[in-house]
Amino acid sequence: MRTLNPAREQAILDAVQDLLTEVGYDRMSIDEVARRARASKATIYRRWTGKAAMVAALLHQLALDYPPLPDTGTLRGDLVAGLTTFCGVVRRKHALVAGLTTAIRTDPDLGRLLGDRIVDPGFAEARRLVERARARGEPVGDVDPATLLEVCEALVWHRLLLTGEPLDEDFVARTVDHIVLPLLRR
Amino acid sequence: MRTLNPAREQAILDAVQDLLTEVGYDRMSIDEVARRARASKATIYRRWTGKAAMVAALLHQLALDYPPLPDTGTLRGDLVAGLTTFCGVVRRKHALVAGLTTAIRTDPDLGRLLGDRIVDPGFAEARRLVERARARGEPVGDVDPATLLEVCEALVWHRLLLTGEPLDEDFVARTVDHIVLPLLRR
Repeated sequence: MRTLNPAREQAILDAVQDLLTEVGYDRMSIDEVARRARASKATIYRRWTGKAAMVAALLHQLALDYPPLPDTGTLRGDLVAGLTTFCGVVRRKHALVAGLTTAIRTDPDLGRLLGDRIVDPGFAEARRLVERARARGEPVGDVDPATLLEVCEALVWHRLLLTGEPLDEDFVARTVDHIVLPLLRR
Repeated sequence: MRTLNPAREQAILDAVQDLLTEVGYDRMSIDEVARRARASKATIYRRWTGKAAMVAALLHQLALDYPPLPDTGTLRGDLVAGLTTFCGVVRRKHALVAGLTTAIRTDPDLGRLLGDRIVDPGFAEARRLVERARARGEPVGDVDPATLLEVCEALVWHRLLLTGEPLDEDFVARTVDHIVLPLLRR
């Protein structure tokens, strides 16, 4: 696996992102990626082993887009900030992730890569946030942060893909106050 | 709006269901429904005003498919039974609902019909289940059943559409014990 010059690599990853959004993973071809990025297939294969590896690189880059969560001084403030950030990222990237949904379920490599690059860092962030609250002396039970993160992710995607209800401040506040905090504090 | 003989009506609704599953709401045409059901378009338009009305009739029929939830004698038992039933229905019908997702978000009539036929009866059932627990003297707080139902639905769809994790007994038990019961009892 060789490196490419950064502008060249970015052009290829941009083409991958556009194609995932437009046609989805299954119908994305390396030929079309090459055409759009004005790169040769040989160049692409020198850098990546195939579609899954290219998507993994893109996901890694998107994961770096998450701004680090602020320490607001209260658990509620941290949760509101975290969920607001997550809603923003999902809103901007949901066409991309929607294009990956079938592939996530059918391609074990891609599912594992998504877990490593996106899901696990999210768990780590959730755990940090809970530890910070404990260190401040806020009452926190021994709930699994992974469970809370699954609930939040599920609620966000449910709105975005199924009900179309807005991912606004009211949604964030209700989710934090009626679901996440009660589960954290029990 | 006239009635049709039941077999004829069923053949048309079956064609609607198949087409929704295969091509989705946006690409489903009345012409193709008519062809598959061996009915004339005139027959269809005598019975329904258009695509949204046909889908509403189908959804109404699917809602009647839900078996009534048993009274198991405990809140936990009722919740496990309810969530197990819901997982089963969603697993069987998810290709159909996936075919409706874009339309649900873009066609306000369809969204409203789905609410009336599927979502509202679900809320009513959830409220009954909670009232039964209260009447038995089980400790139940004043949480909104709609919130709990949204959490359960979101978790189920998240697994089905995004993560591909199984909707099995373990999922039902964990969801009931770690999320729904703690929220109900706070």
